[in-house]
Amino acid sequence: MNILVINAGSSSLKFLMYNMVNEEVLASGRVERIGMDSAILSYEPAGRTEIREVAEILEHTTAIRKVLDILVHKEHGVLASSSDIDAVGHRVVHGGESFSSSVIVNEEVKREIKRLFDLAPLHNPAHMLGINAVELNMPDVPQVVVFDTAFHQTMPAKSYLYPIPLVLYRKHQVRRYGFHGTSHDYVSERAARFLGKPLVELKMVTCHIGNGASCAAILNGQSVDTSMGMTPLEGLMMGTRSGDIDPAIVPYVMGKEELTMNEVNSMLNKHSGLMAISGLSSDMREIQQSMAAGDGSAVLAFDMYEYRLRKYIGSYAAAMNGLDVLVFTAGVGENSSILRESVCRNLTFLGLELDEEANSQRAHGDRVISTVGSRVTVLVIPTNEELVIARDTYRLILARQKA
Amino acid sequence: MNILVINAGSSSLKFLMYNMVNEEVLASGRVERIGMDSAILSYEPAGRTEIREVAEILEHTTAIRKVLDILVHKEHGVLASSSDIDAVGHRVVHGGESFSSSVIVNEEVKREIKRLFDLAPLHNPAHMLGINAVELNMPDVPQVVVFDTAFHQTMPAKSYLYPIPLVLYRKHQVRRYGFHGTSHDYVSERAARFLGKPLVELKMVTCHIGNGASCAAILNGQSVDTSMGMTPLEGLMMGTRSGDIDPAIVPYVMGKEELTMNEVNSMLNKHSGLMAISGLSSDMREIQQSMAAGDGSAVLAFDMYEYRLRKYIGSYAAAMNGLDVLVFTAGVGENSSILRESVCRNLTFLGLELDEEANSQRAHGDRVISTVGSRVTVLVIPTNEELVIARDTYRLILARQKA
Repeated sequence: MNILVINAGSSSLKFLMYNMVNEEVLASGRVERIGMDSAILSYEPAGRTEIREVAEILEHTTAIRKVLDILVHKEHGVLASSSDIDAVGHRVVHGGESFSSSVIVNEEVKREIKRLFDLAPLHNPAHMLGINAVELNMPDVPQVVVFDTAFHQTMPAKSYLYPIPLVLYRKHQVRRYGFHGTSHDYVSERAARFLGKPLVELKMVTCHIGNGASCAAILNGQSVDTSMGMTPLEGLMMGTRSGDIDPAIVPYVMGKEELTMNEVNSMLNKHSGLMAISGLSSDMREIQQSMAAGDGSAVLAFDMYEYRLRKYIGSYAAAMNGLDVLVFTAGVGENSSILRESVCRNLTFLGLELDEEANSQRAHGDRVISTVGSRVTVLVIPTNEELVIARDTYRLILARQKA
Repeated sequence: MNILVINAGSSSLKFLMYNMVNEEVLASGRVERIGMDSAILSYEPAGRTEIREVAEILEHTTAIRKVLDILVHKEHGVLASSSDIDAVGHRVVHGGESFSSSVIVNEEVKREIKRLFDLAPLHNPAHMLGINAVELNMPDVPQVVVFDTAFHQTMPAKSYLYPIPLVLYRKHQVRRYGFHGTSHDYVSERAARFLGKPLVELKMVTCHIGNGASCAAILNGQSVDTSMGMTPLEGLMMGTRSGDIDPAIVPYVMGKEELTMNEVNSMLNKHSGLMAISGLSSDMREIQQSMAAGDGSAVLAFDMYEYRLRKYIGSYAAAMNGLDVLVFTAGVGENSSILRESVCRNLTFLGLELDEEANSQRAHGDRVISTVGSRVTVLVIPTNEELVIARDTYRLILARQKA
C-alpha cells in the first residue's frame, strides 16, 4: 500500500510518499510560498538528487496537483500513476476533545476540524485546505487525519483543567490539550520495546525538544500530563516561544507597550525564548557555538532553557511519584549532548547516572546514555512523526478494507 | 523598645504593638472601611476582650490617630503615652530590585517605593498612605519598611528572568520578584534551628500555603527560586488566584468574553483557584468539609490544588538536585493535615516518609511530621511575618542608635 503523508500549512506543505510494505520512503519534499506566482516545489526521490521548481501556485489544490505530477513524472517520479496512491494521511494540530485517536476523513470529521478553528487558528484552517485539495485532486482516495493532541486525551481532569472559572471550559473549550502527541506516543512505545519492558510498567518522561518543545509524563503507557497547554505556547522555553510566564505579564505588557492581543501573542510565540534572551538565534546549534565563543547572553539563554526543562522533569517525577525512563527526542533532544548532560548532571538525586561517553557520541538510532547502574534509564530515541501518520493511515484503511 | 507594626491596605490596616524586650504582643487590631463615615476599629489588648468602635475615618491619617488614641486609652490602653512608641515597622509588598533587605524610611526610600507603584498598583500606594499617616501623627518616630520581595533578591538570573524580549525587563522591570519573602525567610531559619543544622547545608523547599500561596527553593540559606513571579498571580493554585496557566489563555479569553485588561486580571486574581473549581469557597476548610460530604467539585478542586503544589516541590528538588527539608506554613499549610498527607504520599520517590500520626495531630508550634528514617525531613513551622517586621525594625533602629 502506498501512502502519501501531508503536513499542510497556510502557505506551505510538506509531503512524504511511503511504500508501507517495508515502510520505505519513496520520495519527500515541500511546496513553499503557496499563493505566490513564484512558489517553490522541492522534491527528492529517495537516493537521488533534490529537484527544485519555481511555478505559479496560488492555492493548495494546485500545490497538491504539482506534487502528484512530480510523483508520477516520467524521469523523476516514483509511481507509475497517481492511482497507485492508496491513501493520504494528514497531520492535524488540534483535535480538541473530539478526537482521541486517528480517524478516516468524512463529512462529520471535517465539520469537527472546522469547529476547532478557533482553538488553532494558525493550523487547523491550513490543514483543511490540504484535505480539500486532496479531495479535489483524488476524489476516490481515502484520507486519514492524525492529531497532535490525540495521545494526550488520556490526561485526568486534574491535569487538563485550569484553575479558572469553569464556564471558560464549558463555553470556550479552555483546557490543556497538549501537542506533539504523535511524537510522545511514538518514542514512549519505542523506548519500552527497546528496553524489552512492558510500557504499562514504566514511569516515563518524554522530552520532545525541537524548535517547539514539550515534555510528557507517561504512566501505564498513557499521557497523564504534558507541558504544552491549550496552545503550544505553554510549558518549556523554546526557540522563539516563552513557555510559562506570570499570566499577569500579558495585560501588563499590553498596557505598557500598547499592544493588541495579536501583537502580544506574536511577541510570546515568535520573539521570545532562546531568541529573546540570546539576542542571537532561536537555534540551539547557534546558541552552543556562541557559548563556545564565550558569549554571556548565549550562556544565559542556554541556562534558562536547561533549567526550565529540568524543573519540568522533576515536577513530572513528583506527578508520578517516581521516574524509570527519561527519553530525549527531536532536533535538540537528539543532537545536543551538552543539553542532555546539563539536565542529567543535576538529576542525580533521582538515582540518575549519565554515561558521559555514550552521551557525547554522535550516533543515530535508539540508544541508552545512562550507566548500567543508573536507577533512571536515559534514552535518545529519534522521533518520526511522519511514520506514525503513515502507519495510522495504513492501519485504518486496512481495517476498513477488511470490514 | 516598643514597636508598632503596620500592614496598610487601601481601605483597611492591621496593627500589632510589640514590646521587643521579650517579643511580647501588647495589643493588636485593625481598622476597616477607611474612607467611610462608619469605619470600624477593632482592638484587642493581649489577654483582654476585643473592643469594636464605629467612627468616621475618611483617610489613613485619622486611622493612625485612632490607633494611637486607643493604644494609650486610660481604660483599654497598653502604653502610658504615644511617645512610648519607639519605632514603626511597615509591611511593603513590592521592593522591586531596589531593596534586598529592610531599611529605615527616608525621602529616598519613599521615592523608590513610589517608583514601584506600577509593579504593585494595589499594594504599594496603600503602604505609602500608611507611612505618611504615621509621619503626620508622629513626625519624630523612625519608621522601617520590610519588603515581601527582599528575601528573593538572591535568585540567580536564570530563575528571575522570563524568556521574553529583554527590553521588557530593562524598560518595564518585568521579571520574577517573588513574594511572602518574610515568611519564607522566617520559617527556613527556624526550621534549620529546630533541626540543629546549619541552614547553609540544607536543600529546603518552604511552602507558604495560605489564601495566597507560594513555595520557595532555598539553597545555602538563600532563595534560589520561588513560584510567585512579577506579581503574586503566578505559581500555585490559590484560594481565588489561578496560578500558572497557558499565557495564551489571557488574550483568548479577553477576545471571547470581551474583557478589558483589568477585568481579566480581576478574573484570574479574584475569581479563580479553589473558588472557581469548587464553585463553593476559596477557603480550604470549607473545601474539606464539602469533600467529606462527598462533593465531587470540592474533590476536584482539592486534587488540582494538591497536584500543582506537589509538582512545584518536585521541580524545586530538580532545581537544587535534591531535597533535605520540606516545610509547610501559613493557614492551610499549618492546619490541613489532609493536604500535607496527599502531597507527601506521592513523594516517596524522594525517600520521604510521612509520620501519619504526627501529621494528623492538631498541634501548635514547630514540629516534625516525617518518620525518623525519612530521607526528607518534613516540618510544620507556624509563620509569623509580623514578628519578622518587628525584629527587623528593632535591629535597624538599635544599630542606628549605636552608630
